[in-house]
Amino acid sequence: MVTICDVGPRDGLQNEPEVLEPATRAELVNRLAATGLPRVEAASFVRDDLVPQMAGAEEVAAAIEPREGVEYAGLVLNERGYERLLATRLDRVSCTFAATETFNRRNGNAGLDEAVERVQAIVARSERPSTVTISCAWGCPFEGAVDPAIVADLASRLDGADEVVLADTIGVATPRRVRELVERVRPAGVHLHNTRNTGFANAYVALEAGVTLLDASVGGIGGCPFAPRATGNVATEDLVYMLEGDGVETGVDLDALVRVAEWLEERLGRVLPGQVYRAGASTAA
Amino acid sequence: MVTICDVGPRDGLQNEPEVLEPATRAELVNRLAATGLPRVEAASFVRDDLVPQMAGAEEVAAAIEPREGVEYAGLVLNERGYERLLATRLDRVSCTFAATETFNRRNGNAGLDEAVERVQAIVARSERPSTVTISCAWGCPFEGAVDPAIVADLASRLDGADEVVLADTIGVATPRRVRELVERVRPAGVHLHNTRNTGFANAYVALEAGVTLLDASVGGIGGCPFAPRATGNVATEDLVYMLEGDGVETGVDLDALVRVAEWLEERLGRVLPGQVYRAGASTAA
Repeated sequence: MVTICDVGPRDGLQNEPEVLEPATRAELVNRLAATGLPRVEAASFVRDDLVPQMAGAEEVAAAIEPREGVEYAGLVLNERGYERLLATRLDRVSCTFAATETFNRRNGNAGLDEAVERVQAIVARSERPSTVTISCAWGCPFEGAVDPAIVADLASRLDGADEVVLADTIGVATPRRVRELVERVRPAGVHLHNTRNTGFANAYVALEAGVTLLDASVGGIGGCPFAPRATGNVATEDLVYMLEGDGVETGVDLDALVRVAEWLEERLGRVLPGQVYRAGASTAA
Repeated sequence: MVTICDVGPRDGLQNEPEVLEPATRAELVNRLAATGLPRVEAASFVRDDLVPQMAGAEEVAAAIEPREGVEYAGLVLNERGYERLLATRLDRVSCTFAATETFNRRNGNAGLDEAVERVQAIVARSERPSTVTISCAWGCPFEGAVDPAIVADLASRLDGADEVVLADTIGVATPRRVRELVERVRPAGVHLHNTRNTGFANAYVALEAGVTLLDASVGGIGGCPFAPRATGNVATEDLVYMLEGDGVETGVDLDALVRVAEWLEERLGRVLPGQVYRAGASTAA
């Protein structure tokens, strides 16, 4: 059994040009939860003026119709965000920082050590289960390839977190490098982008190497701010297709998930990167 | 060392709506060969009126500037096609048939046994090295999933061929099924489509299971006639990115290959499915 977390409503929509209303994002969350997905990243508690795609996190959270067996996560970047999440009924706190100095400075106005300390402070006090994602774990758009020893050291500083996830934020990893880092760091999960078409092979080897948690986004939304013509996260329905085809249980109703991708395509008004929803999930045409 | 055969000029362009002139197709072959690819499928010797995309195979062959170390293959479907290929300087004969009765009847006007006999007759008399591809080896658009025992039996009837390749023609295979069939049949290579985003994971496990030959098409062209909204073959440059990133030698200059994809995008006037040429091949942005 693999736990798939759909990050489409958060990491996906945050990196798409369209801004969907909180009600529509909550509907997306509810539709995803109804497919049997065990976890959905529903919102990000950031400043509305800085990230309009994520504005109204409280509205999104309030419009969620909680389902038995589904965990709803929210991303927080600082104590203020954590306080906001705590006032909602979201179940899980997600935090993140990057493995490189430059990425943290450019994206979070903090150096690497300060970013780690910020996250440590949140997970230390968190009253809800926490997941910490180390982004740029295989490569950074500013510093290039990342030394696995650095990622291992960073992960060792996250004792307070319930889960550590390694993210291939810009989609540069290849299977052997994924296997090596997963075997070294032993994270709970991986967050993979399909920017260079390696995302699904990387998911396959990460599972072989022992992870039990995979992030993915419905329709493969998410893009890549560092490569404007590139696609985004591994598509959830394509991941489910691969895993279920291999006999790995996900608990997800693939046909229902395909319908969510079709619904989202209509909302965004354009073809999404996910391929199963376009090609059809069944073997025979 | 893996041998990649770029089938873009044949399987790729044959399944795209545009019809490129023989001179342009020959230029594509020459550009691909210049990247270090060890093999290119250059043409198909079919009736010009039935497959206009492949019209003028002799013209394509005549305009090839042969390079040391590069093999140029041509597809033939019958004795007449074989005679035509023999009159050119192409190095290798490719033949194909499908693993199911219905696919052969619909696509080749012959039942399965007759299709196998046709191929046996060609490879038995061939004066040039031959490759036989069993298409629909994992699934058929008309008959659904294909029994591995049938594929194994078909492969055992191809003693005369120098190489057997198993093709996931409609892109339905998942990694475990690829591993099982490759371990059972022991083909020289696999021909994978990325229709449902499993193509690269499948390539990864096929190599682990022992194949040494991978088909791919530059830019991922090729589409899927049974799923009009779907993409085609695994993109050659994306495959090279994954393999070289893993330390597997391909002999291909990835930057040069990316430039061929860019050139082809201009010729076809639209974005191609390949992702590395859009995202950039280097780790840092």
